[in-house]
Amino acid sequence: MSEDMKQAALDYHANPKPGKISVELTTPAGSQRDLSLAYSPGVAEPVREIAKDPENAYKYTAKGNLVAVISNGSAILGLGNLGSLASKPVMEGKALLFKKFAGIDSIDIEVDTQDPQEIIDTVKLIANTFGGINLEDIKAPECFEVERVLIEQCDIPVFHDDQHGTAIVTAAGMLNALEIAGKTIDQAKMVVLGAGAAAIACTKLLVSCGMKPEHIYMLDRKGVIHSGRDDLNEYKAEFAIETDKRTLDDAIDGADVFLGLSGPDLLSGDQLAKMAKDPIVFACSNPDPEIKPELALATRSDVIMATGRSDYPNQVNNVLGFPFIFRGALDVRASAINEEMKVAAAYAIKDLAKEPATDEVLKAYGVDSLVFGRDYIIPKPMDSRLLGAVSGAVAKAAVDSGVARLPYPSNYPLNSMDDI
Amino acid sequence: MSEDMKQAALDYHANPKPGKISVELTTPAGSQRDLSLAYSPGVAEPVREIAKDPENAYKYTAKGNLVAVISNGSAILGLGNLGSLASKPVMEGKALLFKKFAGIDSIDIEVDTQDPQEIIDTVKLIANTFGGINLEDIKAPECFEVERVLIEQCDIPVFHDDQHGTAIVTAAGMLNALEIAGKTIDQAKMVVLGAGAAAIACTKLLVSCGMKPEHIYMLDRKGVIHSGRDDLNEYKAEFAIETDKRTLDDAIDGADVFLGLSGPDLLSGDQLAKMAKDPIVFACSNPDPEIKPELALATRSDVIMATGRSDYPNQVNNVLGFPFIFRGALDVRASAINEEMKVAAAYAIKDLAKEPATDEVLKAYGVDSLVFGRDYIIPKPMDSRLLGAVSGAVAKAAVDSGVARLPYPSNYPLNSMDDI
Repeated sequence: MSEDMKQAALDYHANPKPGKISVELTTPAGSQRDLSLAYSPGVAEPVREIAKDPENAYKYTAKGNLVAVISNGSAILGLGNLGSLASKPVMEGKALLFKKFAGIDSIDIEVDTQDPQEIIDTVKLIANTFGGINLEDIKAPECFEVERVLIEQCDIPVFHDDQHGTAIVTAAGMLNALEIAGKTIDQAKMVVLGAGAAAIACTKLLVSCGMKPEHIYMLDRKGVIHSGRDDLNEYKAEFAIETDKRTLDDAIDGADVFLGLSGPDLLSGDQLAKMAKDPIVFACSNPDPEIKPELALATRSDVIMATGRSDYPNQVNNVLGFPFIFRGALDVRASAINEEMKVAAAYAIKDLAKEPATDEVLKAYGVDSLVFGRDYIIPKPMDSRLLGAVSGAVAKAAVDSGVARLPYPSNYPLNSMDDI
Repeated sequence: MSEDMKQAALDYHANPKPGKISVELTTPAGSQRDLSLAYSPGVAEPVREIAKDPENAYKYTAKGNLVAVISNGSAILGLGNLGSLASKPVMEGKALLFKKFAGIDSIDIEVDTQDPQEIIDTVKLIANTFGGINLEDIKAPECFEVERVLIEQCDIPVFHDDQHGTAIVTAAGMLNALEIAGKTIDQAKMVVLGAGAAAIACTKLLVSCGMKPEHIYMLDRKGVIHSGRDDLNEYKAEFAIETDKRTLDDAIDGADVFLGLSGPDLLSGDQLAKMAKDPIVFACSNPDPEIKPELALATRSDVIMATGRSDYPNQVNNVLGFPFIFRGALDVRASAINEEMKVAAAYAIKDLAKEPATDEVLKAYGVDSLVFGRDYIIPKPMDSRLLGAVSGAVAKAAVDSGVARLPYPSNYPLNSMDDI
């Protein structure tokens, strides 16, 4: 980022007042009578109703539209473990995106510990407050345990966006890329560079979408994860395959797909050159991708490329997913966000890229056209149709898979924020 | 409450959408550029600044104006222990009052445990998120331990409003009542009926204001708390005195002050009749006071009376205190709300009752005049001068007592919400 942009970012956070979110009233509070309804003595009535039936909390409090964005700051963006307080701007930013894109009230909670059990205990004890929990920027492998236990113990959706949000948007783009390349997912051979939280979640979801585990080479810092290794944690071990390939050079040979969730410039032009025809390269390390788009396209013109950056085509951006996934889950009061809902979200995002772009989107991005193809495999964040498409697909999948406590909403599909 | 009012309270909480508060954006988020400042990549800059110096969290995040209202629901209003979820309407109501009266962003957090150590651990781990913590409706004696340890371990203000908010407003009214009765606080004899969190805090603050411990008879369910009892917890034991009085009948004889924080109709007309001349009766049990004002006034015309109710004169209402106390504490970035700040708040509230009522207040309450005297010893909640008076006194006391990390604010005294 330029120095100008850095200063603009600091100014943005300092003005008009510190931070990006506030808490506001949704009910009148101007008269003595208002206050006697909002607080003592009137407030005793909803208290009694909730004591009788906990579901009444959804009727009389903000719980049902309130999502906590929770982090311990152990893996902040690409910046590393800077502690819980330093993560606050990111978590407030996430809360801002929840509200802006899906009308969800969201508040950040920074948990000041590195101990996964303490995160679990804390979140579990405050979970009642919220309708859903978005875990964020918690490092692997701790994040797996934190999420697994919280999903088990909470009756509201718990979703680690760095894993599943990334996976859903990646899968959406990947399905379209495969279609454009004329390849089928059950035959595609994939190299995954990186074995962290996002890499593992992406790989799992692609398997849920039909990719064959035996076609996937995952690499960590020590090379290909194979069944002969004895240094793998349980999460990586799930992806160990029988192979004599050991390095990225070995694995990339003839691969259809490269999925990078690792670091800058780790895929060379020579390695890209060895991939199969119409190679698919998702170089998602941010801000510096595993291979620069310029180098990739200079190396071979048949590449289909996505990155995490907004200044190149095909940005894999989590904001295409999480606001709408939670919207759908909250609106049917789902007890969890399960695999069916994730797959449904991925397909909904995938399908939207095939719809003609609206004038609103063209204008927002200052372009004349966006046509489904190599340079447009993923919708743009400002596409307001995401709200209806993704929340609808997620809500339907929740109902169909039996985790919804309410029926498919009568006001669905949502046409705009006004429908919420 | 009438059935109509009960239904109105439920309707108020259900509409226009469930609950009373929402989270809103304070910064623009309409363009791609806005989003790149609010979130990745721009958000990395404030993250780095906070990692360098934690104080920068006050510059770049909402922390400095954000107060958590935290409860486990173990003592909800007068309703008892109904659990954390049922307390949510009350805590949202408190958040509404913080915003309405002092412009403080406030969010409720319900902690689902009865174990004080678990409350402490949870609040301590999430405290970084906030600029201050308001504990609420946690039952005694657990609330004492929870507050004591959190004050020790947190570097932000932790304040149990049921104790100290009540104490501050009670002390303000009591000081004025004593003046009107022509009595001095160091000679006044007081009977305190009730030995819970509020009773103990009120008594302590009145001692800080000059009342003599040897002039105070505190009674719990078993009668007068005296030094011969062996059934007292450490909090009650602090108020045990050498006396042969054992019952309310014994203690009330000749008392100048009755402070009730107990239950309905526990002070009889006969007992009131035995009090000294110009007796001061604070019957704060809510909604049904220890003695009905009608009975008290029928028994003797020289009584100076306050209750917790808005439909009688002299309402002891915590909203006169906590919003402005936190406002002052936040604005000088106080590390705690200490005894000096509480006393300063009490005197500021006390003094305001002596100022001529503004037209705004007269209109809000539909009265022609409010003149300092027996029927007007405490300001009204809708008196907008409370904001400047109380926050100013609290901020000054924080600076003078050495717990402020910022100087007395240059924009003080606050004249209206627009100054915040």
